[in-house]
Amino acid sequence: MNTANTVFLIIAAVLVLMMTPGLAFFYGGLVSKKNVVNTMLSVFIICALAIVLFVAFGYEMCFDGNIAGIFGHIRHIFLSGADLNRIVLKDQGITAGSYLLFEMMFAIITPALFVGATVGRMRFNFLLVFVVFWSVLVYYPLVHMVWGTGGLLAGWGILDFAGGTVVHINAGITALVLSIFLGPRYRKQSQAYSLPWVLLGTAILWLGWYGFNAGSAFGMNSVALTACLTTTVAAASSMMTWLLLEESLTGKVSLDGICTGTLCGLVGITPGAGYESCVGALFTGALCSLASYFFISRVKGKLSFDDPLDAFGCHGVSGIVGSLTVGLFASRGIDKQISLNGLFYGGGWRLLFNQLAGTLFTIVFTLLMVSLITFILKRFVSMRVSVRDEQLGLDLSEHGEFADYQVGEASVFSLK
Amino acid sequence: MNTANTVFLIIAAVLVLMMTPGLAFFYGGLVSKKNVVNTMLSVFIICALAIVLFVAFGYEMCFDGNIAGIFGHIRHIFLSGADLNRIVLKDQGITAGSYLLFEMMFAIITPALFVGATVGRMRFNFLLVFVVFWSVLVYYPLVHMVWGTGGLLAGWGILDFAGGTVVHINAGITALVLSIFLGPRYRKQSQAYSLPWVLLGTAILWLGWYGFNAGSAFGMNSVALTACLTTTVAAASSMMTWLLLEESLTGKVSLDGICTGTLCGLVGITPGAGYESCVGALFTGALCSLASYFFISRVKGKLSFDDPLDAFGCHGVSGIVGSLTVGLFASRGIDKQISLNGLFYGGGWRLLFNQLAGTLFTIVFTLLMVSLITFILKRFVSMRVSVRDEQLGLDLSEHGEFADYQVGEASVFSLK
Amino acid sequence: MNTANTVFLIIAAVLVLMMTPGLAFFYGGLVSKKNVVNTMLSVFIICALAIVLFVAFGYEMCFDGNIAGIFGHIRHIFLSGADLNRIVLKDQGITAGSYLLFEMMFAIITPALFVGATVGRMRFNFLLVFVVFWSVLVYYPLVHMVWGTGGLLAGWGILDFAGGTVVHINAGITALVLSIFLGPRYRKQSQAYSLPWVLLGTAILWLGWYGFNAGSAFGMNSVALTACLTTTVAAASSMMTWLLLEESLTGKVSLDGICTGTLCGLVGITPGAGYESCVGALFTGALCSLASYFFISRVKGKLSFDDPLDAFGCHGVSGIVGSLTVGLFASRGIDKQISLNGLFYGGGWRLLFNQLAGTLFTIVFTLLMVSLITFILKRFVSMRVSVRDEQLGLDLSEHGEFADYQVGEASVFSLK
Repeated sequence: MNTANTVFLIIAAVLVLMMTPGLAFFYGGLVSKKNVVNTMLSVFIICALAIVLFVAFGYEMCFDGNIAGIFGHIRHIFLSGADLNRIVLKDQGITAGSYLLFEMMFAIITPALFVGATVGRMRFNFLLVFVVFWSVLVYYPLVHMVWGTGGLLAGWGILDFAGGTVVHINAGITALVLSIFLGPRYRKQSQAYSLPWVLLGTAILWLGWYGFNAGSAFGMNSVALTACLTTTVAAASSMMTWLLLEESLTGKVSLDGICTGTLCGLVGITPGAGYESCVGALFTGALCSLASYFFISRVKGKLSFDDPLDAFGCHGVSGIVGSLTVGLFASRGIDKQISLNGLFYGGGWRLLFNQLAGTLFTIVFTLLMVSLITFILKRFVSMRVSVRDEQLGLDLSEHGEFADYQVGEASVFSLK
Repeated sequence: MNTANTVFLIIAAVLVLMMTPGLAFFYGGLVSKKNVVNTMLSVFIICALAIVLFVAFGYEMCFDGNIAGIFGHIRHIFLSGADLNRIVLKDQGITAGSYLLFEMMFAIITPALFVGATVGRMRFNFLLVFVVFWSVLVYYPLVHMVWGTGGLLAGWGILDFAGGTVVHINAGITALVLSIFLGPRYRKQSQAYSLPWVLLGTAILWLGWYGFNAGSAFGMNSVALTACLTTTVAAASSMMTWLLLEESLTGKVSLDGICTGTLCGLVGITPGAGYESCVGALFTGALCSLASYFFISRVKGKLSFDDPLDAFGCHGVSGIVGSLTVGLFASRGIDKQISLNGLFYGGGWRLLFNQLAGTLFTIVFTLLMVSLITFILKRFVSMRVSVRDEQLGLDLSEHGEFADYQVGEASVFSLK
Repeated sequence: MNTANTVFLIIAAVLVLMMTPGLAFFYGGLVSKKNVVNTMLSVFIICALAIVLFVAFGYEMCFDGNIAGIFGHIRHIFLSGADLNRIVLKDQGITAGSYLLFEMMFAIITPALFVGATVGRMRFNFLLVFVVFWSVLVYYPLVHMVWGTGGLLAGWGILDFAGGTVVHINAGITALVLSIFLGPRYRKQSQAYSLPWVLLGTAILWLGWYGFNAGSAFGMNSVALTACLTTTVAAASSMMTWLLLEESLTGKVSLDGICTGTLCGLVGITPGAGYESCVGALFTGALCSLASYFFISRVKGKLSFDDPLDAFGCHGVSGIVGSLTVGLFASRGIDKQISLNGLFYGGGWRLLFNQLAGTLFTIVFTLLMVSLITFILKRFVSMRVSVRDEQLGLDLSEHGEFADYQVGEASVFSLK
């Protein structure tokens, strides 16, 4: 075991774990006051589900050997008999135990992302069951295909440093499919619960993203440092772009918008964090912000699906843009282990084509699998709450709680 | 100095420091709106008190030599003349300075835990004085007895990896005694101040627990990795158990409950974090959740003491269960430095008996000492606020502040 | 690259980054409910601005060579062509990339500090433009003068471990000048938005301060450990002092006050964190708390400038006191690399004189430059919002948002 690298990876893992409650605050701050508890709990409970599943057999399905480029073997239920002190990454001196811990945190945050599309109308129990099937049939296979030994997409030459396809495109597309199956809310909210919580969520997510991106170098080296730098620059560039867009198009810069803009840059740099220079990150952040801004403000309203917190508009759109920009900005001068330069670094169209192929595959695979799971699951578990429960709010109808004393008092008055 | 291990230990210490404000949010979110400032400040101010005391003479009382297995020597007031660069843990290459910093954080969080039992009725000044006497007469002796050189309980063969007895049983029993001395609140609250703050507190505590448990290996090694893994698994298992209990017994899963469930698992795994396998952690988390759930929902109501935030129900009950399960699940296959296996790992009843003895000793010692301190202190410092102040709320009566603008406005109205 | 030291520095950098949102919560919790979004966004948006500027040319202006002791060369716009893997600190084995990342975070938090003086009345666009000019003309030169190769103040023999002059005195004086140019608010608020947010901000800032102070050793060594310890002790000592002052002078200890007191100690220990013993830190914390307490409670009311959140009273006053106490408590027994002992450690008046000179220079330099920038900038960009907008609150007038659903609802009522 390389002690320093393991310290780095474990701290990275802990930072990624914090992203899930961070997302709970981000989403919880944006919803209406009657759906705060449901939104936060829907995100947070995934910690329990995803950890138990990952330890039970998920880690093995992702990383133990290879079956047809899609799955791993399941040989150690609940890690019984697994040697966690075995070195699995020789260059970095990382053991199975710390590798597992780090990857586990990705299995938690990814399903939490699509909760943003389902707020205010999905039954809590449907979510629980859905996450189980989605983990087994969508997430673990994708992880294996992109990052596993002998994985299908890895074989295609796709580059995904920290989860552009596996995490963000996957979660964004799942969000899209779920919101289409669910149908729109009966009435859209006008007022966010609390913007300070949105900012807190954004700050925790940004913090966690250093674990997410730099940790994906699995040790402290020049690639990890690059990832730290590009993550920072892409976030700032995306914020600045959103600021300029809002300033010039609406005249007012909103906290809500700047927070979304920050996340778009972070999403976008994820697949290329260890492969791009600062200048690459600057453009990647700006392009993602532009794409997500126009999708959310101009395109989304014309489409019929209802994705209240822009899980697709942020993670889907910026995830796709970020995955493609790897084909433009990746550079062997930054990470010698990749075999192709991007278009702007003299590598020609080849890498861009690979990225396009991998991105399309992820979109289609996720679309099909999530539609199939949802279509079948709906027949066995009720997916959407009743109209009355939706109007009452899911905090009270699903959980019997109020987010805070003011909502509680207000509700007591309104029920009189 | 081993640089990598020291980096690890210092970061662990900083994470444990964050647990105290984390606890302030957890407790502050659960109380009624008129006691939020008092609750948060009561927790947070312990940082100041416990740090000054620990630097003044606490560290020396815990760790400098041995007097009758109960105390250390006090030789360096405010560390004057102490050599902080001396290596105190040879295997890990840890100096006195970093060891002191890590242990200091435990001396802060432990007294903060029992504030949960006293909310809404204890005088702020009583708390300040009580924490001083409790630190000197209860906490430092227990630390020395369990973790100090030549400590009494260490000699009995008790295993306490990160503070099941020293921290959680101790704080839980202290909470119980204080709530009995205080008597119940005049009127129990119906509405928590804010559940998002409860979730934030839970998330920060979970984060800090990695420092708490893994840091107790005092370096990055296979035991520290085990502690990271068991901490994660026990928390998840405890959450799942609480979810299933609420779902099946009440039909509604509450955010409040899931947060408490998370903490129960984290409390329970603390004494065995470095000694158990994932499967052991899974059972430990589930058992603690079960025990605390039934105590809080079925037993507590029939008893006459008033512990509003379940400092005893969570830390006391899960602390005791966790301390005993070490006798079941500890394994020399996980940590070679322990001398006995638990019952389920072929070690027979011996370790379970040791754990039982150590747990009982901690309970009795804390019960007696806290009763004695409180009994005497009550004669000199007023312990409970007046009825009028309790009804007004301690935020206004003790601190002259409101938690937020809404409470402020509401109070202005109600005073008219 | 020294892996362990780099892990330490990168984590320190990430912790310092978190201080900026932490400050957003601290300030946002203290303002009135109609200026929360503006305050939080004003702090947070500086992340975007300061990162882009620092990467564009700021790092080079601070650290690349030396022009007259005041500036560095600008040779690598957006770091193009810069070798980030070059070792820049030989003793610690730190590369340019990680050094840059760490220093970047200081360039973010410093301008965020003076937002506390401008809340409720400064135009958002003025802030954006001001931060650009201030970074180039005040911050980068000061960094170079104190920490750069051949820097002017470094040549005077001033000691500033982690930013007493560069960060706190600088920000405090800038706050003072801006609040004088802006003029006072029309009506002062009576009720803080939310004290839990103030506590959260304090906790995050404290956490980040370990990165700030210990990270300034640029590696894990005995100086970094000293900085961890003195940071902790100074914060606790400052809290205790504030507690005793409030208890004896007003009879009530406030959460608001204790949080400010905590920050005063942290500000004060910053310049001497790696040079002082625990006893030195104890006195430094107490002296800073005393000075800031009396300035804020006794002096400030008699002066005509309006600094609502005490950016000057905390960072300016405690920054000055802390910078001077280095001349009293610095000890070559703690850090052998400094050349002079403080007055109380047998070094005579020399170091105290150096500190006084450096402190005065920083005050005068900042006063002149900020006055000049503001005076000129005011002619081109409107500095203060209209009376109507100030009464309406900057959340609505500048950003078109409400901080939370309650403010939203209340405003709807009041507009009817």
